[in-house]
Amino acid sequence: MIPESEIKKLSIKTNSRIVLLVIDGLGGLPYTDGKTELEAARIPNLDNLVRRGISGATIPVSYGITPGSGPAHLSLFGYDPLRYEIGRGVLEALGIGLELSDKDLAARGNFATMDKEGVIIDRRAGRISDEENKRICKLLQKKIVKIEDTEVLIKPGKEHRFVILFRGESLEEINDTDPQEVGKRARKAEVERPGQEKSARIVNEFVRLSNEVLKNEPRANTVLLRGICKCPPIPSMSELFKLKPAAIATYPMYRGLARLVGMEVLDSGLTIEDEFRTLKKNFSEYDFFYLHIKKTDSYGEDGNRENKIKIIEEVDSFIPRVLDLAPDVLVITGDHSTPALLKGHSWHPNPFLLYSKFTRVDGLKRFSERECVKGGLGIFSATEAMPLMLANALKLKKWGA
Amino acid sequence: MIPESEIKKLSIKTNSRIVLLVIDGLGGLPYTDGKTELEAARIPNLDNLVRRGISGATIPVSYGITPGSGPAHLSLFGYDPLRYEIGRGVLEALGIGLELSDKDLAARGNFATMDKEGVIIDRRAGRISDEENKRICKLLQKKIVKIEDTEVLIKPGKEHRFVILFRGESLEEINDTDPQEVGKRARKAEVERPGQEKSARIVNEFVRLSNEVLKNEPRANTVLLRGICKCPPIPSMSELFKLKPAAIATYPMYRGLARLVGMEVLDSGLTIEDEFRTLKKNFSEYDFFYLHIKKTDSYGEDGNRENKIKIIEEVDSFIPRVLDLAPDVLVITGDHSTPALLKGHSWHPNPFLLYSKFTRVDGLKRFSERECVKGGLGIFSATEAMPLMLANALKLKKWGA
Repeated sequence: MIPESEIKKLSIKTNSRIVLLVIDGLGGLPYTDGKTELEAARIPNLDNLVRRGISGATIPVSYGITPGSGPAHLSLFGYDPLRYEIGRGVLEALGIGLELSDKDLAARGNFATMDKEGVIIDRRAGRISDEENKRICKLLQKKIVKIEDTEVLIKPGKEHRFVILFRGESLEEINDTDPQEVGKRARKAEVERPGQEKSARIVNEFVRLSNEVLKNEPRANTVLLRGICKCPPIPSMSELFKLKPAAIATYPMYRGLARLVGMEVLDSGLTIEDEFRTLKKNFSEYDFFYLHIKKTDSYGEDGNRENKIKIIEEVDSFIPRVLDLAPDVLVITGDHSTPALLKGHSWHPNPFLLYSKFTRVDGLKRFSERECVKGGLGIFSATEAMPLMLANALKLKKWGA
Repeated sequence: MIPESEIKKLSIKTNSRIVLLVIDGLGGLPYTDGKTELEAARIPNLDNLVRRGISGATIPVSYGITPGSGPAHLSLFGYDPLRYEIGRGVLEALGIGLELSDKDLAARGNFATMDKEGVIIDRRAGRISDEENKRICKLLQKKIVKIEDTEVLIKPGKEHRFVILFRGESLEEINDTDPQEVGKRARKAEVERPGQEKSARIVNEFVRLSNEVLKNEPRANTVLLRGICKCPPIPSMSELFKLKPAAIATYPMYRGLARLVGMEVLDSGLTIEDEFRTLKKNFSEYDFFYLHIKKTDSYGEDGNRENKIKIIEEVDSFIPRVLDLAPDVLVITGDHSTPALLKGHSWHPNPFLLYSKFTRVDGLKRFSERECVKGGLGIFSATEAMPLMLANALKLKKWGA
C-alpha cells in the first residue's frame, strides 16, 4: 500500500466517476452441493460483466484474520485498518446513527444490577425490555446533561444496552468500568497515562450521578461502561483522494463509517431497488459512490443460504441500471466473507471485479470466489482497491519522474 | 502479517487440532526429464488430498532469498524471521542438542593452529579427528569450568568444530575472535557498545586460558570463536496462539528450534514410521503438532534425486494414518526448497496444502510445486501459514467490530 502522503500528492480532481458496490459478506463456502452461495446464484449480469472486466480476490486485513465490518470497510475505502483502529464505543455510536465529532468520547453502556455493597450481581439488569431501557435513558438524560464543561448524550440501544457520548475538550480513551464478571464492584476509570485526568473525572462522576438517579430502580440500578474511546482522526477522502464521495447505505453503522471518512450520506429508501434509484438520481452530483448491500451479510449470519442467494440474484438484476449510468470505474466486491456455513464473518478472500476502459480483460467466465482467485488481479490486500479504482478512473498522476 | 500484539488478542483455546507436516527441502527443480522430485514421485495419497483441500505456494522469507533452516522454520511457526534472527552460535548449539536459556551466550568454535608469534597458520588445526576433538574438549572442560561467575560449557562437534556456552548474567553478543584468514592473529573480543564489557572479559579470558591448556598440543593449540550470540527472547506459541504444541523431529536442530518457540519435544524413534506412530500415540494430548521429515533435505543436499523421491513416496504412504486421526487442520509443506539439481537450499517457493472443513476446495489434481502455484491460496509469505491454520481450526476471534 502506497503511503497516504504519496497518494495525496498524486490524486487529481477529474470528471470521471467511480462506483464501489459493496455486497456485504458476499463470499461464502461450498455447501453439500459443492457450491458457494455466489456459485449457486443465477447472476447473468455479473457473469457478463466479469467477461468484460478484470477480477481478483482481496484479503480484507491479513491472512487468516476475520475482520469486523469497521476494518473491512476502511480497507476498501483506502485506509490501513491497522492504523485507524475504530474502537467499540465509536462503532456502537455509529451503529445507532449518532454523528461523532473529534470532541466525542463514546462508550457502550450496560444497565446492570448491584447490591447494597456495590457488588454487581447482574451485568445485564435481567435484560430489561427496550421500553424500559428507553424510559431509563430518558430519566438519566434529564438529570445528567453536563459534567464540568462536557455535554453528556445518552441513547438507548436494545435490551440493557445504551450508548453514551461525552462531548467536550481534552477527553481521552480510558479503561472499562465493567468488571466483566458478577461478584465484583465496578471498576473506576483510572489515569494510566498523562492526559486521561479529565476523562477519568467525567466518567467516574457520570457513574456516581447515574447510581444516584437509578438508586430506586429494582433492576437497572447502575451502569457499566465499555469500549470508552474516541474516533481516530482520519483524513477525509476528499483530502487524500480529491474525491467528492457519496454513500448509499441503509444501515446506520455503514452510514456512520462513510461519514467518518468524509462521505456525504445520501437519503435513500430502504429496499435494494431504492438504493440503486438513489444512485441514479445523484449520479451527476458526485464522483465516487459507495453503495452498500446489507442483507447478504445478515442472511449469511443467520445461516440462511437460500435467502443470501436470492439477495445476490436481486443485486445482479440491477447491474444493467448501473452500467446505463456509464461509470468510468465500477467495482463489485464484498467487505468480508460471511459463509452461511459458518453463520458469521470469515477470513476468506473476497471476490473482486473491476470494470473500466483500461483493464487487461482476463477472460473469466463466472463471477465467483474461486474464479476470481484465478483472475488477472490475483490475490491482493483490500487496501489496494482504492488506488486501483483511482488509477482506472485516471485520477492518479505519475509517481516519480 | 498481522502484528503479534493483535494475534495474541485474537487467539482462543479450543479443542480443535492442527497438524503441520514439514517435509524439509521438499521443493525441487525440473531435471532432464522435465520433472521436479515431487513431480516424479508417485504420491497417490497426497494427490488425493490436494483434490479435497486448498493449495498455494509459500515464500519462506522474501523473494529470491534462500533461507537457512532456522528462519525457514520460524516463518512456518508464525514468527517474523527478520525480527527473530537466530545467530549461528545458538543454531549450532541447538544443532548438537543443547538446551539454551536466556542466560546463555553461545558460540561456534574451531580448534586452530597458531605459531609462536600467535599468528594463525591453520584455521582448522588440520581437521583433527572427531576423537581428538572429544579428547581436547574434555581436557579444556576439565580445566575451565567457570570464569568470574560465568559457567563454561564445551561440547565437541565434528572434526575441528565445537560449541561453547557461557552461562551467566549480563552477557551480550560480541564480535568473532576468528580472523577468517591465516597469517593473522586472532581478534580480541572488543567492547563496541555499553553492556558488552563482561562478555569481552569472559571471552578473552577463555581464549587466554585455552591457549595455556592447549600450548603443548601439536595442532589444536588455540581456539577461534564465531557467531557469539544469545537466543532472542521469543514469545512462546502458547503465549501468542494459546496452543499446546508438540514437536516430532529426529534431528537435534529442529528439536531445538521447536523448544525455542515453546513446543514440547516428544520422544520418538528415528524412522519416518516411528514419527507417525508418535503422532498417533500423543494425538489426544496436544492441539498442535509439528512433524518434521529430514531426509528429503539431506538427499537434496547430496544431489541424490532418486532417494529424495523415495522419501517423498514413503511420507505419502503415511498420509492415510494422519487422516485417520481426523485432525481439524492438516498442512503439508516444506520449510524451503532443496533441489537435488542445486545440492543445497534454494529460494523457490514451497508447495503448500491445507486441508480443513472450511476451505474453498480449489480442484487441483496434483500435489506439486507448479500446481500449487495455481492453487486457491496463491503465492504468499510462509509467515501467513500460522494465521491460516489457526483460522481454519476456528481458533481466532473476529478482529474489530
